[in-house]
Amino acid sequence: MPENRQVIIATLPAGPLDVTNFEVRPAPSPECGEDEVVCRTLALTIGAGQRAGLQGSASYAGAPVSGVVMGGTGVAVVEDSRAPGFAPGDVVTGPTGWQERSALKSRHLRKVDASLDPALHLGLFGTNGLTAYFGLLEVGRPRAGQTVVVSAAAGSVGHIVGQIAKRAGCRVVGVAGSEEKCQLLVDELGFDAAVNYKTPEFRDQFRAATPDRIDVYFDNTGGAILESALFRMNTFGRIVCCGAVSAYDGAPPAAGPRGVPGLLVNNQVRMEGFLVFRFADRYDAAREEMAGWVARGELKPRVSEYHGLEQAPQAFVDLLAGRTVGTTVVRVN
Amino acid sequence: MPENRQVIIATLPAGPLDVTNFEVRPAPSPECGEDEVVCRTLALTIGAGQRAGLQGSASYAGAPVSGVVMGGTGVAVVEDSRAPGFAPGDVVTGPTGWQERSALKSRHLRKVDASLDPALHLGLFGTNGLTAYFGLLEVGRPRAGQTVVVSAAAGSVGHIVGQIAKRAGCRVVGVAGSEEKCQLLVDELGFDAAVNYKTPEFRDQFRAATPDRIDVYFDNTGGAILESALFRMNTFGRIVCCGAVSAYDGAPPAAGPRGVPGLLVNNQVRMEGFLVFRFADRYDAAREEMAGWVARGELKPRVSEYHGLEQAPQAFVDLLAGRTVGTTVVRVN
Repeated sequence: MPENRQVIIATLPAGPLDVTNFEVRPAPSPECGEDEVVCRTLALTIGAGQRAGLQGSASYAGAPVSGVVMGGTGVAVVEDSRAPGFAPGDVVTGPTGWQERSALKSRHLRKVDASLDPALHLGLFGTNGLTAYFGLLEVGRPRAGQTVVVSAAAGSVGHIVGQIAKRAGCRVVGVAGSEEKCQLLVDELGFDAAVNYKTPEFRDQFRAATPDRIDVYFDNTGGAILESALFRMNTFGRIVCCGAVSAYDGAPPAAGPRGVPGLLVNNQVRMEGFLVFRFADRYDAAREEMAGWVARGELKPRVSEYHGLEQAPQAFVDLLAGRTVGTTVVRVN
Repeated sequence: MPENRQVIIATLPAGPLDVTNFEVRPAPSPECGEDEVVCRTLALTIGAGQRAGLQGSASYAGAPVSGVVMGGTGVAVVEDSRAPGFAPGDVVTGPTGWQERSALKSRHLRKVDASLDPALHLGLFGTNGLTAYFGLLEVGRPRAGQTVVVSAAAGSVGHIVGQIAKRAGCRVVGVAGSEEKCQLLVDELGFDAAVNYKTPEFRDQFRAATPDRIDVYFDNTGGAILESALFRMNTFGRIVCCGAVSAYDGAPPAAGPRGVPGLLVNNQVRMEGFLVFRFADRYDAAREEMAGWVARGELKPRVSEYHGLEQAPQAFVDLLAGRTVGTTVVRVN
């Protein structure tokens, strides 16, 4: 029995991602280098943004190549350490990649509370939750009574955004890709309304769900939903550009949304792209605040779980196809 | 001899604006109503944004109708007053429209220094200059050493933006529509570089003129120039959305610029539309500061002059065709 298993990028996808783009292979357990730990992966998270990292073509410097281990963030338990401050048994998050065992430089690791479910470290306290927190509160700056709309609202970031906005006293409208997701947003996560962008009546329903128009639009999708939101923004509205999942799993879009820049001028709208790393010095305070919200039942992080490393490609395909809800997590060991 | 002459919107333009869309007609001198003044127009200014106001069709509520006096801002001398605080001989700015005499409510008027050239009140101290000042300094927030790019750089707003940016210690690149304008920007107004967007080599020249990429892009045009700038923005860059002149004199654009929202996210770019009225409580301070810059030779406002009310339609057509430089002013009396 091999000591390690890895998910390898077998081929770069030409169109929509498929499980055959990956291959699971046995591998030797890694050596523990200077200032490194060897750890065993407990769980991985997969984000839609990782699809963008597979857009590479031969002509694009820095693009990922096939034949390498698929990258990704995981929670892992330290088995061996040559790094000060890390000991066997410690639980860490870091760039484990899609493999059962990895050797990681200590500077890329963060020790986490081993008593908590790894899914919480990967979701709410990981990049997804922090992106929702800072993107909404610092870039979007919602005020009580305002209308906040979020796209990919049942997704890893979106479902947190909506709940934080609700907590801030806003009217919250989610846009998602199925009736089931819309129902979950309203019934279980407290959204005021949710609209399925895949129905032919989307535009009418979207308008009806935003009677006071939109003050903050948190955009995870780009494309047609962004365009619909642009036409509904209030004066001094803010559009938080967080991602463009509509463009990840296929060809780059031929054009941007109508209304840019005309509607931005007329309605004095601010549209701002951000990466969460900008707020890195405030992560700990944000995690602490969100932990309090969870403890008081004001925030309910959701997870779609897969079991076994070999399920990671399927989880990724499902995520991109909109079949997962909340943070997508693969439990490995 | 009639006591008044007016330029009437004879027909709404279906395509590019033409002088035949207007008609000059004699009219009676207006009556002075309660709280009004009757004044004689000294000069008018014409802005590209006024073309957007002529986009009306019968189905659009609030669109201008034909048969009415063309609107616009002018400088005028008071001939008769039934408004407290205004006396014959006072010089005012206000919505005179394109006519020799008008009756105006005093609340729409502002008394100005009669010893200054009316063109200065209409340009630098009017909406154009204030738009440049607040748009660049408050929305764009350039810092010394950064690269500022402005489109329609020889226009009423653009030529002020570039000079204020230069004063702020920035590298300033203008985009304009002819070699003559580009030369004027560099030779007479102190721009570091200027690029003619009408040459086939525009993209290469634009790239060459922005070796350190772009920190602030002041957009007066939208369209292809905005798209080119989007692909050159630095991290944390700011795009000031001021106008979309590329879309005024024809059909509304079928799509927005590529790169929205993807490039906004990747480079954490802020794109913000604004209307200058937001800063109305700071106009006087801005005018005072700019007057100081002019006095010290640090800012040279430019004017394209036309003489006689009947030249206003031609001035408007020339402005939209890119044949004017700086603020377009029609001296009436």
